Amino acid sequence: MITSTGNAKVKQLIQLQKKRKARDEAKVFLAEGLRMALEAPREQVLDVYVSESFYNKRNKELKLDAWGGKLCVFTDSVFAHVSDTKTPQGILTVMRQMEYKLEDILGREKPLLVILDNLQDPGNLGTILRAGEAAGVTGVILSRDCVDIYNPKVIRSTMGSIYRMPFLYVDELPQVVSAMKESGIQSFAAHLDGKRSYDQESYTGGTAFLIGNEGNGLRADVAKAADTYVRIPMCGQVESLNAAVAASVLMFEAARQRRE
Amino acid sequence: MITSTGNAKVKQLIQLQKKRKARDEAKVFLAEGLRMALEAPREQVLDVYVSESFYNKRNKELKLDAWGGKLCVFTDSVFAHVSDTKTPQGILTVMRQMEYKLEDILGREKPLLVILDNLQDPGNLGTILRAGEAAGVTGVILSRDCVDIYNPKVIRSTMGSIYRMPFLYVDELPQVVSAMKESGIQSFAAHLDGKRSYDQESYTGGTAFLIGNEGNGLRADVAKAADTYVRIPMCGQVESLNAAVAASVLMFEAARQRRE
Repeated sequence: MITSTGNAKVKQLIQLQKKRKARDEAKVFLAEGLRMALEAPREQVLDVYVSESFYNKRNKELKLDAWGGKLCVFTDSVFAHVSDTKTPQGILTVMRQMEYKLEDILGREKPLLVILDNLQDPGNLGTILRAGEAAGVTGVILSRDCVDIYNPKVIRSTMGSIYRMPFLYVDELPQVVSAMKESGIQSFAAHLDGKRSYDQESYTGGTAFLIGNEGNGLRADVAKAADTYVRIPMCGQVESLNAAVAASVLMFEAARQRRE
Repeated sequence: MITSTGNAKVKQLIQLQKKRKARDEAKVFLAEGLRMALEAPREQVLDVYVSESFYNKRNKELKLDAWGGKLCVFTDSVFAHVSDTKTPQGILTVMRQMEYKLEDILGREKPLLVILDNLQDPGNLGTILRAGEAAGVTGVILSRDCVDIYNPKVIRSTMGSIYRMPFLYVDELPQVVSAMKESGIQSFAAHLDGKRSYDQESYTGGTAFLIGNEGNGLRADVAKAADTYVRIPMCGQVESLNAAVAASVLMFEAARQRRE
């Protein structure tokens, strides 16, 4: 059992919590909490860290010992030190990062894609993955300058969808949007300049929704690459919607049309 | 100009930031940032606090001096001490709390209502107010144990909708849902037991959507009071949606039907 916050493993975990660079160099990410541990694909689990109380309470039921050399027990205070949450559940897994290719994402039958341009809020990204999985989204493409998908706050708000939603960071979104066009995928930019209401378009074929930054929307070159601008009609004095809400309204309209 | 964090006004503002009880006793709330200040109904503004740099930069343009005795300047470091944000914009208003009655909320023509049962996350509540205003929601009713709508994080995520969306906290949600029935308002519980998909119902008449707690959904007695259970069909392994996403999907479906 590890009892000191000075331990090298503890220090490394804190680096992995806090720094994208540390995660990317090690090609890992952290998934905290019981639900995230239970839904984790076992072949991607590199290490399992638990608090002493969690181990004592749940070892039998969860067969923690079966993890063998991958399992490591921390005292409760060391676990709390490493945890990203105020009230840690007592289990944290180190996972191998996912690796998807553009072909994985574009190559499906009638894909339903979400393209994110400079999205910055971790909660928004996690919520889009979770709602996207529920709405039948088949992949997410992110500009390189979006928030890190392996940020612990993103992971937590995906509620497990991080394990199942194919995604890819790309350097040049406009080029990818053009490549989609060649694959027969129609792209729709959620844009205040949109003339047609979003529910007047058909999303039953290959479809991609472009969602922009929380404060500034889509960058001009990205919006320009889209086939169609759509607008979500808004009442009252609201100027824009939260990015995750806008994405959800579009994704679930696509899901509704695809069910009919 | 106030230069010390020991000043009584400074101490009181911090109480108002942090404590629901302090806000409710004084019947005020704090709205931080330029946008919130510009959209604030002037008759509800009790005090305007600005940082020294904000005052020097924006006084002429914004006519800050016109606030007279209501205006108070803090040094930048005192302002940062009082602010709820990491990078304060330099303006904070103390606002009189809103006062709505049940009749204000139920008495409209074909109301579109959202009923929140024990919602806990400030970001979710703020997002529901903002998306709700955009979708044409006419009022929000909250169980007494929901997060405080005047919590600074709620205020910020409403992006101004807090000033315009009628709302009411009530002790007994089931009774209110029954009262709605008598006013001809049909209530729909977002519920995993729902047999009909949400897009199979009509929301063009008086409509109320019931949304439950983030972890536990609707309490049994609240759900039981609803006329109809509706379900948002979900693909993949997703078990539930984020509360603000679920509310948004329902609210914008109602908006879509009401536009047709």
